Amino acid sequence: MHIICLGTASCYPTSTRSVSCTAVRFEDGNVWLFDCGEGSQVQLQKSPVRPSRISKVFITHMHGDHAFGLPGLMCTVGNMVPDREDFTLEIYGPQGLRRFIRETLILSRSALTYDYVVHELIPIEEQYPEDWNDWPEVIEATGSLHPQEKPGRTITADSDFTWNVLDNQKVSVKAGPVKHSIPSFGFVVAEQDLPGKLDVQRLRQLEVPPGPMYALIKKGEAVTLPSGEVLDPSEVLGPPKRGRKITVLGDTCDSSKMEGIAKCSDVVLHEATLDNSMEEKAEDLGHSTPRMAARFAEKTNSTLLMLYHFSQRYKATPVDKGDVSVEILLKEAEEELSSSGCSCKVRLAEDLMEFAVPRPSN
Amino acid sequence: MHIICLGTASCYPTSTRSVSCTAVRFEDGNVWLFDCGEGSQVQLQKSPVRPSRISKVFITHMHGDHAFGLPGLMCTVGNMVPDREDFTLEIYGPQGLRRFIRETLILSRSALTYDYVVHELIPIEEQYPEDWNDWPEVIEATGSLHPQEKPGRTITADSDFTWNVLDNQKVSVKAGPVKHSIPSFGFVVAEQDLPGKLDVQRLRQLEVPPGPMYALIKKGEAVTLPSGEVLDPSEVLGPPKRGRKITVLGDTCDSSKMEGIAKCSDVVLHEATLDNSMEEKAEDLGHSTPRMAARFAEKTNSTLLMLYHFSQRYKATPVDKGDVSVEILLKEAEEELSSSGCSCKVRLAEDLMEFAVPRPSN
Repeated sequence: MHIICLGTASCYPTSTRSVSCTAVRFEDGNVWLFDCGEGSQVQLQKSPVRPSRISKVFITHMHGDHAFGLPGLMCTVGNMVPDREDFTLEIYGPQGLRRFIRETLILSRSALTYDYVVHELIPIEEQYPEDWNDWPEVIEATGSLHPQEKPGRTITADSDFTWNVLDNQKVSVKAGPVKHSIPSFGFVVAEQDLPGKLDVQRLRQLEVPPGPMYALIKKGEAVTLPSGEVLDPSEVLGPPKRGRKITVLGDTCDSSKMEGIAKCSDVVLHEATLDNSMEEKAEDLGHSTPRMAARFAEKTNSTLLMLYHFSQRYKATPVDKGDVSVEILLKEAEEELSSSGCSCKVRLAEDLMEFAVPRPSN
Repeated sequence: MHIICLGTASCYPTSTRSVSCTAVRFEDGNVWLFDCGEGSQVQLQKSPVRPSRISKVFITHMHGDHAFGLPGLMCTVGNMVPDREDFTLEIYGPQGLRRFIRETLILSRSALTYDYVVHELIPIEEQYPEDWNDWPEVIEATGSLHPQEKPGRTITADSDFTWNVLDNQKVSVKAGPVKHSIPSFGFVVAEQDLPGKLDVQRLRQLEVPPGPMYALIKKGEAVTLPSGEVLDPSEVLGPPKRGRKITVLGDTCDSSKMEGIAKCSDVVLHEATLDNSMEEKAEDLGHSTPRMAARFAEKTNSTLLMLYHFSQRYKATPVDKGDVSVEILLKEAEEELSSSGCSCKVRLAEDLMEFAVPRPSN
């Protein structure tokens, strides 16, 4: 698994830092995108990610810097990969996303060369801001589907405020609520654990014939040996290899409700829009500081905290008077983690940064 | 008047050539944008155009490479210019544009710091493609307005298939129909002619007292002199100075219906998506070649033909095998103009190119 940061800025894109978009590439080559702000398709061109391998897109919330690049990306992917008859792009995000995509694609008369489906997450009541109902009501996707659209699922929270987004044989995705100025989600991508290592020497001693019986033991099943003895798999099977876990949070000034499902993440991507000195402003705007992000990493006992979604006021290379180095955000998160004795490492995301997520050592 | 090319590519943006967006800056500093594809706000940052001076936006047609950058630009302009209580951004474009903007801004809960209004041009029947009604019907903007939206005008064509878009004391804008795969328009921006020069020497001879009487003559009105004689203004007033005329065409494979209103343009921006050898494909896709663009310039007797909206296959600097130099498009247009003895000049638009439109010498 690799993570490729495609856009790491908040609010609006510039030529040096694009808005939110993060790719996760799996070992089979499939790519999942998390958020897709305006310009993400150009960032993809600059990256090693092949747009034709994007199979799923997850949108944390409906703000433009997280979603306005999706219709254009969907059109461009179609132009690049003309024949994809058996392919369906799966898109997941908050209620409203289905209508956003349908309206933009139909009004622009954008035919696609592949099918798509939007699965919507229905927010819980406390995710809505006070002024939600002051806005015109346009949430329901009405009317006919786009010609290449398949009907999607409606996903509601279970009693633990967790949305079971998907679960295939290899990976599961759960979503949780984070507090922001509009309904916002975080996604937890967890590989299934792999079976432990067989103790082949011991199996030979027990005269277990290699083949189907090994496979059964590897699955954790008890088998009856040629001797008539029943072998408990724990005698010959090492501990399972823990799967990797990546948590990608949407914009938030309070991510505590996700601490449960994000526990022991190998990587947490948490926003840090403003520095600690601006905590009050950050909270007013529904955003986090490095201190707030670091506390989430502490509480979840995560291995690596990746900060992203920086205000454009923070510069990689300060030039003009008044420029603030983005390094302050790193320093503030490190200070918080160090003061609490937490061993979690911190990095600042940069546009087009790619890094491997190593398998945890159990 | 200056023209600043912000995006000159067709279909999808790359880091070297962005999609359609052209700025016209007037002497009073106001800027009008023509089209606003994805990434136009980043192009604006790289250009000398101040986003806060954008007062009007014209959208030629609803394809994503011409419109998908508008919602993001509208949000960003608001962030950059917090207090604009008396300002209303005027947007003009095909029916469907009002709904596109309203839906994207409401679904993303994007409040603006200024008001906006969308004036829609209703296409004539022949602008609709055969498959128009195969698509779901979502053209009408329904429901409540966006909180910062003012009700817009609905503009229909007059008997000459001309849409009288606006006419203030200085400039008029007319739109005309061009043939494309969806309803597409061209816009003709025409400065009003300026009054001719007063022959001050002759006025002194006639003992006309300087002051209000000069102003009346300049307006072309007859005045009664102190001697009792009535002065015909043509005796003392030179010919009016012709205003400048800029024609910006949307995507098209047939722009002939606009030859009337675009007559004697100082600058014509005409698309040339593919080279002459691909004319059949261009027409199938609703696009033009340099030859087709040059013929429009000939027929309208225009001064400068600016080609734009190039397929990404044409490169400014060919590097890889199979790259085609964009210069072929220039050469083909020049050949057409030269073979017909037309004196119109041709240029290839480039991203971030800026040029002054000189006042015509009558």
